[in-house]
Amino acid sequence: MVHSLSKAELSELKTSLAGIVGDRVTDGLSVRQHHAHDEGYHAACAPDLVATPRNTGEVAQIVSACAAADCAIVPWGAGTSLEGNALAVNGGVCIDLSQMTEILSMRPEDFRVTVQAGVRRIQLNTGLRSTGLFFPIDPGADATLGGMAATRASGTNAVRYGTMRDNVLGCTVVLADGRIVRTARSAPKSAAGYDLTALLVGSEGTLGIITEVTLRIYPVPDHTIAVVCVFDEVGDAVKASMATIQYGLDVARIEFLDAPMMGAINRFERAAYPEAPTLFLEFHGMESQVKEQFALFEDICAAHRGRIAASASSPEERSALWRARHNALYATRALVPNRRVLITDVCVPVSRLADCLLKAREYLDGSSLRSTIAGHVGDGNFHAFILVDPERPQDVEEAEALHHRMARLAISMDGTCTGEHGVGMGKRDLLREELADAVPVMAAVKAALDPRNIMNPGKILP
Amino acid sequence: MVHSLSKAELSELKTSLAGIVGDRVTDGLSVRQHHAHDEGYHAACAPDLVATPRNTGEVAQIVSACAAADCAIVPWGAGTSLEGNALAVNGGVCIDLSQMTEILSMRPEDFRVTVQAGVRRIQLNTGLRSTGLFFPIDPGADATLGGMAATRASGTNAVRYGTMRDNVLGCTVVLADGRIVRTARSAPKSAAGYDLTALLVGSEGTLGIITEVTLRIYPVPDHTIAVVCVFDEVGDAVKASMATIQYGLDVARIEFLDAPMMGAINRFERAAYPEAPTLFLEFHGMESQVKEQFALFEDICAAHRGRIAASASSPEERSALWRARHNALYATRALVPNRRVLITDVCVPVSRLADCLLKAREYLDGSSLRSTIAGHVGDGNFHAFILVDPERPQDVEEAEALHHRMARLAISMDGTCTGEHGVGMGKRDLLREELADAVPVMAAVKAALDPRNIMNPGKILP
Repeated sequence: MVHSLSKAELSELKTSLAGIVGDRVTDGLSVRQHHAHDEGYHAACAPDLVATPRNTGEVAQIVSACAAADCAIVPWGAGTSLEGNALAVNGGVCIDLSQMTEILSMRPEDFRVTVQAGVRRIQLNTGLRSTGLFFPIDPGADATLGGMAATRASGTNAVRYGTMRDNVLGCTVVLADGRIVRTARSAPKSAAGYDLTALLVGSEGTLGIITEVTLRIYPVPDHTIAVVCVFDEVGDAVKASMATIQYGLDVARIEFLDAPMMGAINRFERAAYPEAPTLFLEFHGMESQVKEQFALFEDICAAHRGRIAASASSPEERSALWRARHNALYATRALVPNRRVLITDVCVPVSRLADCLLKAREYLDGSSLRSTIAGHVGDGNFHAFILVDPERPQDVEEAEALHHRMARLAISMDGTCTGEHGVGMGKRDLLREELADAVPVMAAVKAALDPRNIMNPGKILP
Repeated sequence: MVHSLSKAELSELKTSLAGIVGDRVTDGLSVRQHHAHDEGYHAACAPDLVATPRNTGEVAQIVSACAAADCAIVPWGAGTSLEGNALAVNGGVCIDLSQMTEILSMRPEDFRVTVQAGVRRIQLNTGLRSTGLFFPIDPGADATLGGMAATRASGTNAVRYGTMRDNVLGCTVVLADGRIVRTARSAPKSAAGYDLTALLVGSEGTLGIITEVTLRIYPVPDHTIAVVCVFDEVGDAVKASMATIQYGLDVARIEFLDAPMMGAINRFERAAYPEAPTLFLEFHGMESQVKEQFALFEDICAAHRGRIAASASSPEERSALWRARHNALYATRALVPNRRVLITDVCVPVSRLADCLLKAREYLDGSSLRSTIAGHVGDGNFHAFILVDPERPQDVEEAEALHHRMARLAISMDGTCTGEHGVGMGKRDLLREELADAVPVMAAVKAALDPRNIMNPGKILP
């Protein structure tokens, strides 16, 4: 069974890892501390060693060495996760995949690309630029694609292009015993046995370490319009987004930001958006189609007492516009110095979204903590960003209570406690509330593939 | 361990099943024979008992009783599978889900519907008619939705709407010990633990019996155009289909039928299509968009020396047109009396499709058996329909050799031996060739969830 290693055992393991990756293994404090926290609110926990492989073969050798030493293994990408998904709760070896940055093959004629796990979203899209194709999944942070696969990330754009579930076509994974497995071949579809790709996507490193990912890529749309639409009431904004989805409009992104969030963004960006409930939208397609969809949206917007505050077609203007949305976390964090942000992540059926979001706002209004809300409302998914002073335990406690209350609200509406951030360390109890009969099945799969529980222990399962 | 039951044991089991489903359990020969063969070429194998539950609770009780008796369990839907996926190779109890035909809930505002596993595709779409929504996955046969989920079916339309992998949002499943598990809640997306839905979809009843399925449904497109396009050469037709996909045209279906298939269809339907390589296509969307896409396709068609032979917009004309494609299997079977049809099912990257299909045609031309070809070429997936005289073992042997040769060809092109029919009993060896390192992982998952191997034994895994 996995256990905390003694000093002597660690030193021995370090020597054997050095035999694999040379000087790319360390027990230096600063490197360990760099890998001790993600962008969430969880307390820091540092790994004992950090190893930085450059290819799948090295990962497999590291895992074998750790398995031989009964040492816990925690994979690391860009450190942008929010639920402690990549924190070494019991120490062990952090396998930092951030130097695995090779784009292994681009097959634009088949709309697919294969990358090493450490390639980041922006690097990939830069690499794809000459092909006229792009990878649409955009969680905001410039995460690694391996990390995005492991947490089943999504973000803006999912309403049109799906999540990592829909866009990872296959992966190479290192299992708990060091075996290397390729989960699928390159056919556009397959009925060849169990869907191991889908099993690995969202498993947060608890079943294996994803070292290479094959992704679906898409033609850059001929024409894109981004729109900002402002409302007086939260309910109107949310209902306009629900109508947009329910009327079947082909929208690529539809994001809600509440008035406090717009205020935070104005401060952070030195911008002057109306500080009111706001929708950011984007339509992709051929020009005629985009214009037709935009006209339909204008009707929906007017019917819900909204007004178009800005629209943009050129890439530069659109980037400026979306930068506001992308900076939501940093803008909220900057509202008060030295705060951490706890971000909730509920997702409910679109038909329940207004009920859920208004109720969540009530919960937040009854709290002493400052907060903002933003959400991928086309998917029924939204986040409250709650500011906590990490030095005040009562803040953390209050924020966690809000977090759990909102998650239970979503579950009561047949939704989920996590739309896209994953379970990590913080939501294991909530997962059991959400999928009571399914959790033992997950545990059986985990026990089958990682009988000694060395792969990212303390995550997802009790 | 699962074993063949003695007469006394069977009689005892029948009595206990009668305690659950009353007279809906039988060992009558005609019912057993009805469940002894699907629409494929495999030799008949009858179950010992057939039980016909009406709800998930009854399925769970049947499974518990079978587990207590160490008796194999084989789920049955409409009997339209092609790889012996639902045949009782070692006898045991066939659980016939065809009377579980209730549409449990329709939530058009969330684009989802939940049905019992025995609901068939056409029944579902009839039930949805008043909502303006439809379920697009169409494997040709009027299969049950439980069976389609269990085999990860697709068919025409997958090029736009995806396969069952993309359209099953959750399911209720009975596991090997009789436990009932719901795999997901109703949020449009989720990062809540392992994706058990995806693990079950395509598991062919070997991990559990899917008793209820929640499906994504879509707005009926405002406008639809179906087109028939004829070519002189197979290569031109296939390359036109590849160009259609690679230029990013938003085509909903794109089907290839070769000249022998068009001849078979003409005979079967008393139609007068040109007996030449043919593409059937369909575009869905708003009128302007559909017309724009169709115009682009006309250019591609002309560039590949094709000509538009027919087009249709009204539902009646389109149905007449697609009936030809849907009857491909029956039309081929009718070419010679008393023949069975072995259908291959390879799928390759679209960029390899012309190479693969032309090579496959060469293999077929070198054989003494008659054959036709049809395929979902937008997905890189095609089928050869090979006529065999079931009385002549050398026919079956030759067809199987062709089948394996084509599958190996696809695997050599980084494709799959099964795009949509599943592994069943016939492709277990091919699966090992295709995904050598993944098969032991599948076996470990299987052993974890069905340690006594009572769930549809003899399928998928060695």
